[in-house]
Amino acid sequence: MKRIAKIDPWKVITTDVKKDKRVQESLTSIGNGYMGLRGNFEEGYSGDTHIGTYIAGVWYPDKTRVGWWKIGYPEYFGKVINATNFLPITIRINGHQVDLAKDKVRDFHLELDMKAGVLNRSYVWTNDETEIAFTFTRFVSVATKELAVMHVEANVLKGNPIIEMMPHLDGDVVNEDSNYDEQFWIERDRGLTPQPYLTTKTIENNYGTDRFTVTTMMSNTVEGLKQEDSNESDMTVSESYKGTVSAGETVKLTKLVSVITSRDVEEAEQVKAAEAILSDASQAAFAKLKEAHVSEWAKRWNNADVVIQGDAASQQGVRFNIFQLFSTYYGEDPRLNVGPKGFTGEKYGGATYWDTESCILPMYLSTTDEEVSRQLLVYRHNQLEEAHVNASKQGLDGALYPMVTFTGIECHNEWEITFEEIHRNGAIAHAIYNHATYSGDESYLLDQGIEVLTGISRFWADRVHYSKRNQKYMIHGVTGPNEYENNINNNWYTNTMAAWTLRYTLESLEKVSDEKKASLNLESEELSQWKDIVENMYFPKDEALDVFVQHDTFLDKDLRPVDSLKPEERPINQNWSWDKILRSPFIKQADVLQGLYFLNHEFSQEEKERNFDFYEPMTVHESSLSPLVHSILASELGKKEKAFEMYERTARLDLDNYNNDTEDGLHITSMSGGWLSIVQGFAGMRTLTGELSFDPYCPEKWDGYEFKLKYRGRLIKVTVNKESVEFTLQEGDALDITLYGETVTIKDSVNRAITK
Amino acid sequence: MKRIAKIDPWKVITTDVKKDKRVQESLTSIGNGYMGLRGNFEEGYSGDTHIGTYIAGVWYPDKTRVGWWKIGYPEYFGKVINATNFLPITIRINGHQVDLAKDKVRDFHLELDMKAGVLNRSYVWTNDETEIAFTFTRFVSVATKELAVMHVEANVLKGNPIIEMMPHLDGDVVNEDSNYDEQFWIERDRGLTPQPYLTTKTIENNYGTDRFTVTTMMSNTVEGLKQEDSNESDMTVSESYKGTVSAGETVKLTKLVSVITSRDVEEAEQVKAAEAILSDASQAAFAKLKEAHVSEWAKRWNNADVVIQGDAASQQGVRFNIFQLFSTYYGEDPRLNVGPKGFTGEKYGGATYWDTESCILPMYLSTTDEEVSRQLLVYRHNQLEEAHVNASKQGLDGALYPMVTFTGIECHNEWEITFEEIHRNGAIAHAIYNHATYSGDESYLLDQGIEVLTGISRFWADRVHYSKRNQKYMIHGVTGPNEYENNINNNWYTNTMAAWTLRYTLESLEKVSDEKKASLNLESEELSQWKDIVENMYFPKDEALDVFVQHDTFLDKDLRPVDSLKPEERPINQNWSWDKILRSPFIKQADVLQGLYFLNHEFSQEEKERNFDFYEPMTVHESSLSPLVHSILASELGKKEKAFEMYERTARLDLDNYNNDTEDGLHITSMSGGWLSIVQGFAGMRTLTGELSFDPYCPEKWDGYEFKLKYRGRLIKVTVNKESVEFTLQEGDALDITLYGETVTIKDSVNRAITK
Repeated sequence: MKRIAKIDPWKVITTDVKKDKRVQESLTSIGNGYMGLRGNFEEGYSGDTHIGTYIAGVWYPDKTRVGWWKIGYPEYFGKVINATNFLPITIRINGHQVDLAKDKVRDFHLELDMKAGVLNRSYVWTNDETEIAFTFTRFVSVATKELAVMHVEANVLKGNPIIEMMPHLDGDVVNEDSNYDEQFWIERDRGLTPQPYLTTKTIENNYGTDRFTVTTMMSNTVEGLKQEDSNESDMTVSESYKGTVSAGETVKLTKLVSVITSRDVEEAEQVKAAEAILSDASQAAFAKLKEAHVSEWAKRWNNADVVIQGDAASQQGVRFNIFQLFSTYYGEDPRLNVGPKGFTGEKYGGATYWDTESCILPMYLSTTDEEVSRQLLVYRHNQLEEAHVNASKQGLDGALYPMVTFTGIECHNEWEITFEEIHRNGAIAHAIYNHATYSGDESYLLDQGIEVLTGISRFWADRVHYSKRNQKYMIHGVTGPNEYENNINNNWYTNTMAAWTLRYTLESLEKVSDEKKASLNLESEELSQWKDIVENMYFPKDEALDVFVQHDTFLDKDLRPVDSLKPEERPINQNWSWDKILRSPFIKQADVLQGLYFLNHEFSQEEKERNFDFYEPMTVHESSLSPLVHSILASELGKKEKAFEMYERTARLDLDNYNNDTEDGLHITSMSGGWLSIVQGFAGMRTLTGELSFDPYCPEKWDGYEFKLKYRGRLIKVTVNKESVEFTLQEGDALDITLYGETVTIKDSVNRAITK
Repeated sequence: MKRIAKIDPWKVITTDVKKDKRVQESLTSIGNGYMGLRGNFEEGYSGDTHIGTYIAGVWYPDKTRVGWWKIGYPEYFGKVINATNFLPITIRINGHQVDLAKDKVRDFHLELDMKAGVLNRSYVWTNDETEIAFTFTRFVSVATKELAVMHVEANVLKGNPIIEMMPHLDGDVVNEDSNYDEQFWIERDRGLTPQPYLTTKTIENNYGTDRFTVTTMMSNTVEGLKQEDSNESDMTVSESYKGTVSAGETVKLTKLVSVITSRDVEEAEQVKAAEAILSDASQAAFAKLKEAHVSEWAKRWNNADVVIQGDAASQQGVRFNIFQLFSTYYGEDPRLNVGPKGFTGEKYGGATYWDTESCILPMYLSTTDEEVSRQLLVYRHNQLEEAHVNASKQGLDGALYPMVTFTGIECHNEWEITFEEIHRNGAIAHAIYNHATYSGDESYLLDQGIEVLTGISRFWADRVHYSKRNQKYMIHGVTGPNEYENNINNNWYTNTMAAWTLRYTLESLEKVSDEKKASLNLESEELSQWKDIVENMYFPKDEALDVFVQHDTFLDKDLRPVDSLKPEERPINQNWSWDKILRSPFIKQADVLQGLYFLNHEFSQEEKERNFDFYEPMTVHESSLSPLVHSILASELGKKEKAFEMYERTARLDLDNYNNDTEDGLHITSMSGGWLSIVQGFAGMRTLTGELSFDPYCPEKWDGYEFKLKYRGRLIKVTVNKESVEFTLQEGDALDITLYGETVTIKDSVNRAITK
């Protein structure tokens, strides 16, 4: 754990220019679901920095060559690519280029204002003759998705300097992690009129995937400096503003940038479209643009904010989670999903993981309009055909959803992940169930959902094998959620989710229309086989320990708790060889426990407790998906201290850099962890049986907390403190819920004593 | 199986220019242990062809980027690289460049003369006006390792053509399988005097491994054509000879090429060294040079030839094996080993595999001077330090010999191979044992060998873990010899070889000097631990089936025989996804049976038979190392038909392209398979107890066979026919051997009836 930002309920503040620069850049990333960028400096920085500007849905299939190609391996790794850097405003003072890696500055203050969705930065630049106070303001507009705004003010405190500001657009960008050190972009067009713009296109690839064209255009408004000239050269367009500024005077520059992509506008029309955005935007002053943006964020917060009393670090954590998640995805574009790093880094690649179904959907169900969570399900249905392609590449029937994808086609390249970590199919089925039971609306389930479920069930039915000697169906050769073991047999979680999917599909088929049923071409023989698998699946269990067994030979390991590791060995993925990790008993993330979370209503408290007590001590939580599951289960089991520890770990994972990898970007797909740990954990919300129930308590360190829920047309505010819990119906009709096992009707407001 | 060459006892002949061209090129590769080349055409070929010229010990560490880097992964893949192509002699007839992919030719005859070690080729080129009979002769000299000789004659049968011949050296070569499409060579120097030469150097690399400089120089002698000019340009030097040739006249060109590398001669001296070789060679006529070469091959054949009566296909197979093996390695250079493709292709990479110990050493023990097999052991001792580095990269004690290497450092890049296929360590220990028991000479064992054994034993002792619940030592996370399963637990073979190594090391330590013992820093605690592992190792066995179990969960698979596969599914590695292969019961190569072969004297006939009968039907033999083990065991068990089937499969693996991959090059490291199947199989030779014993029979399809053995200072000829076996002492003192379980003294000659 390493904390570099100050504790503040609404802000992420650092006052050190250079310390942990890459972590600082990750933490101060901003985005609007359409595009985003890391917290790089407008004026440039010659020290260690990781430049990153990203556009949702814009990617490149990077060729990979592993030692041996084998049938079923994906041929490329789908990469999130760095796009035209629209941030830069080079600044010169008396000819000297401002560079915070070298220059003397004081009062450096960098502040991400999460409430407003704005990044503010200020410092006083000094040398013997001159002192200038700079302030920078930046946002990517939530009101106009194609618009980014950078505003700089320079207030001369001392001296009479010549100040020059050069806003520019830089298409000469690379990815740090490209396999072949390739630049992924070529220039297609550039110009200085109507406004300076640059059009770039991704390079050709051998895999027939879409290429992308992006036009970036800027419009600069300046007070106190005169325009010198405009320039264009390969992959760059720039303007220059210059003037002598006296002490006491302030100069200002507002750089508006519009970004148009071929995902929405064809290449020939992009300049016009970019100009239109800027033309609209330029009619408003900087303050107006900001106001429009801030008011959109206010609406988001109004539905989703979580207020925590008595613990500013916790408060900051959960708001940082919500802020970064909503900056990445707010459901506007059905072709998009929640990428692992969002707009905060280039690592991992792909736009969609099973994280969406396991972590993201459950929070969006409650915090956004119903269309948003439904759209996440539609996304998968739209890629059902590609899921069939993924399965057929393995020689298997049915649908195998990808582990990592942009298009539905698997685009990761480790065999132990791509065709072994098949449990993801179970999470996708579970999301359909989760949505149907939460919303009470089965229209997706019975139309598109049943097609997805049928595809997945067909996959499971072909992927199992019947072991004659055990007279059971088994699933060999998988990687479970615990990616610290590969190619294992009979992962309890995978087998459980597979059998559950088949069962749920069979149940759901009872409800679908005859017409729909006919369209699925299901023969009774196939359905019988599914039933047979459901009834005869093998679930590894140890009778002596009375726990579910992670996989066939897990108990043969040298079992020992995480406690037995030396501090310098952790995180083990940065200190141990893969050989040692694979053979160790240490669990990267919830595995058996993930099953107890997903199918929470199907297991007894005793089962949950025994398995939690057995597995949790061996879990290193080196996946960001791990702590939230443990926090929720710990809350359920009354292990309040553990629940709170895990809450902090998920809510402040990046703020406190727990896994020592925040420099690569933020763990976007687990940003729901704080919210879920509070709502499903501390407040004990459950919805999987189709009823809404709660079992709330207040963590010892807090005085109280408050959140809101959208549920079947209602907006419900839940307020918890040490003594009582209150449900306030803010919108919609009265509703029966279960509280501590008893039915309570919420109508206006209900208050009950805490009994947990 | 696909046969493209005619059956001939001493030759490999094809008469089709284009059919299976790459296979033809592989089969007609030649080499002299120092360098070699595929059977490409001197005059070029515009059709599908795989150009290959290789120099032993010259390689490049090709950068690999897999999806995720993990600690313990090797950073590069060591590649055998294509070096300056010294073969070309472009030929023009009336300005038309001869190209057998397009031109009309008749009487095409391509013939590898294995007895002479010479590649001959002839055809008649025709068009309306002209007919020319071409003959080409090529060899890389076994008498002078740096020398390659290409000789062409053109006899004009009709017409009066202008013939031009342009011998050249071409440094502009690439590998087909380079990861980054890089050219691995840059030009350092070139010139036309004293003779046309080209000096190239491998490009820089990021891993600090040696770069190589190679100078290739040619000297051409021509009859009947006049020299036109000499040319040089980037990466090329050439000469041109031209003249009008009348019908009935013959023109001749002899191209001598010397190849000097920085492995022997520093760059600045290379031109001089290359010139000296050519200067010496030029003093002899082509015929003389050939004679010197052929007579060296005659010596080799005199010691190692196997004569088979009554089956020309078998005869051709075993000679092809011996020829290609000796073309790759004859023990002259202690820094070299036996690369998987020798000089016949670029696939696989690396120069040294466990194949050396498992397949190659056993044959060299008997067919070459004792220094050769000892040198193979010294090679490993020389790389003991690197083996420690390999282990320490995994965070483990002791020595882990590489799966693939040029230098001793692991240079393959699949984790499931590099740090999981650790059974190779056992084979290296076994080779020491094999050598000591065969030769009766323990000087290597007790000096260098014990250091190797100690390093390997330390590795095993750290690599096992103690499973508390089973109260046994286990080895998790391995890949056994059957590479169609990865990351398995308790591979019977690996566990067996590990325990055996520890036992053998402990036994050997009893014999070493006190001084040597002290130098090994062995504490009694360490030795006790080794004893404990030997006594408490877990060896999976199924009591019901009474077989050793390949690994913990093997019997849970959907077990079925290879018979149940459809023909179009085979080989499965070219038709099945890796997912299906990993989960299938099909075995790539001898696994449990490899153990029964290596430790043949420690298991009963009944044990061997039960395990053979259980595993062999599930074995697809898609590794070239598989059939020989099965052939030998089948012979031992009296399964003569199976033994012969497996003999053919190993001896004619490439000649009949059984695995549909001969186009990539030949399976050099299993070229001992034919010899071993005969000597250890049909003749039943055993040496592991320190005694020489035989149990011979004659395969039904043969009339008889004959081979020679070098054994402890003797040269023994063994002749077997349907009725009798004869041992003739050709050199050395009388010797007691065991024949059919009875002691027989060989002095002059001994003849006994076949009783098997």
